[in-house]
Amino acid sequence: MSVKALFFDVFGTLVDWRAGIAREAERILKPRGHALDWFAFADAWRDEYQPGMEEVRAGRTPFSKLDVLHRRNLERILPRFGISNLEDDVARDLNLAWHRLDGWRDVAPGLMQLRKQCLLAPVSNGNISLMVDLARRNNFPWDAILGAETAGDYKPKPRVYLAACAALDLPPGECMMVAAHTNDLVAAAKCGLRTAHVARPNERGPGTGEAAPKAPVDVAASSLEELAARLEA
Amino acid sequence: MSVKALFFDVFGTLVDWRAGIAREAERILKPRGHALDWFAFADAWRDEYQPGMEEVRAGRTPFSKLDVLHRRNLERILPRFGISNLEDDVARDLNLAWHRLDGWRDVAPGLMQLRKQCLLAPVSNGNISLMVDLARRNNFPWDAILGAETAGDYKPKPRVYLAACAALDLPPGECMMVAAHTNDLVAAAKCGLRTAHVARPNERGPGTGEAAPKAPVDVAASSLEELAARLEA
Repeated sequence: MSVKALFFDVFGTLVDWRAGIAREAERILKPRGHALDWFAFADAWRDEYQPGMEEVRAGRTPFSKLDVLHRRNLERILPRFGISNLEDDVARDLNLAWHRLDGWRDVAPGLMQLRKQCLLAPVSNGNISLMVDLARRNNFPWDAILGAETAGDYKPKPRVYLAACAALDLPPGECMMVAAHTNDLVAAAKCGLRTAHVARPNERGPGTGEAAPKAPVDVAASSLEELAARLEA
Repeated sequence: MSVKALFFDVFGTLVDWRAGIAREAERILKPRGHALDWFAFADAWRDEYQPGMEEVRAGRTPFSKLDVLHRRNLERILPRFGISNLEDDVARDLNLAWHRLDGWRDVAPGLMQLRKQCLLAPVSNGNISLMVDLARRNNFPWDAILGAETAGDYKPKPRVYLAACAALDLPPGECMMVAAHTNDLVAAAKCGLRTAHVARPNERGPGTGEAAPKAPVDVAASSLEELAARLEA
């Protein structure tokens, strides 16, 4: 298996969106007198993620970057938590919470190891500026930022995976998609990419994530460091 | 002047295309019995660069990545140097000479300094894989690869500069284009970007390059290290 590039899902696979969004929401909203279940807020915001992208994938809405969808989704959930009339600059700052998420502990050291063997790029639904900010914050050593914004569509649409391979001039069989979510890997495999599952069993709280892939993959690992060791072998 | 992102021209500004192409052409063609003026070969290949892109800029040809234009231009110049029927895999390897260029000496250390103050991205006419290979070879610490391939057009078309600003969610006035060529800077300035000229007086051999900008710029420097010092001040 000669893998020349590794493509990474980011939310859930590399960064802990749930703890980060809960933390940022509390930091921004609590001083303004709002008291709510911050994890429930994070979950509710994330729940709007797939429906928002589906409008784009289905062709009912033109492509817009994830920051725009996140903002739309934020406006949708705020009333449910009894928040109305949030000032625009506060809503804008809150929306950028997605740019300030922390990586799971194994990610930065794992990427440093993987970098010795392969080109590395996020192939995320997050936009370029979001990926850049997460990389700066967490020391992710990307070779390029690929994914939804460069492809003009959202995963799991085939063109997102294929555009990433094409950008690096590699056939899909020499690229490997790395994700904590089986559906992402199944879609990548259909495009001819190799696949690696990284278990994030606590993505949405203890025991909520995929402890193992639900479909065949080339490699299943519990951390990026394990993935690096498996690819070296 | 609050500059948050620096965008770089690459060929000539960061890497010495002339010495690199001459070296690679000699390495690949000489063992096949070809004897020619390697610098003249590099210059001839480079001379086809602007006309090739102009077809795209004028809308007469759909966008294709620079590797494709380089290959087309290579086929055009080979006969002039008495080379016919080059095997496809050799031509392909020769075409990738552009991926194996070396940075001017100040570039890697200069970028490391500049990285502390700003986001850094190439905004080159080179394609993503080409930029990735040059970055790996020369330790260029990019935050993202922007430029022609992400914009779908070639500099100095305005959309290339504006797409780079948009990708980082920055207004043009907080972005600075860095180049050794005044025309690139003038085009960027028309889009509202700040500009920095870096002198590369020996780009095409001694005394051939711009020792100073030919139009007003925000900063004129003789190296990236000097640029870093000027931006810190």
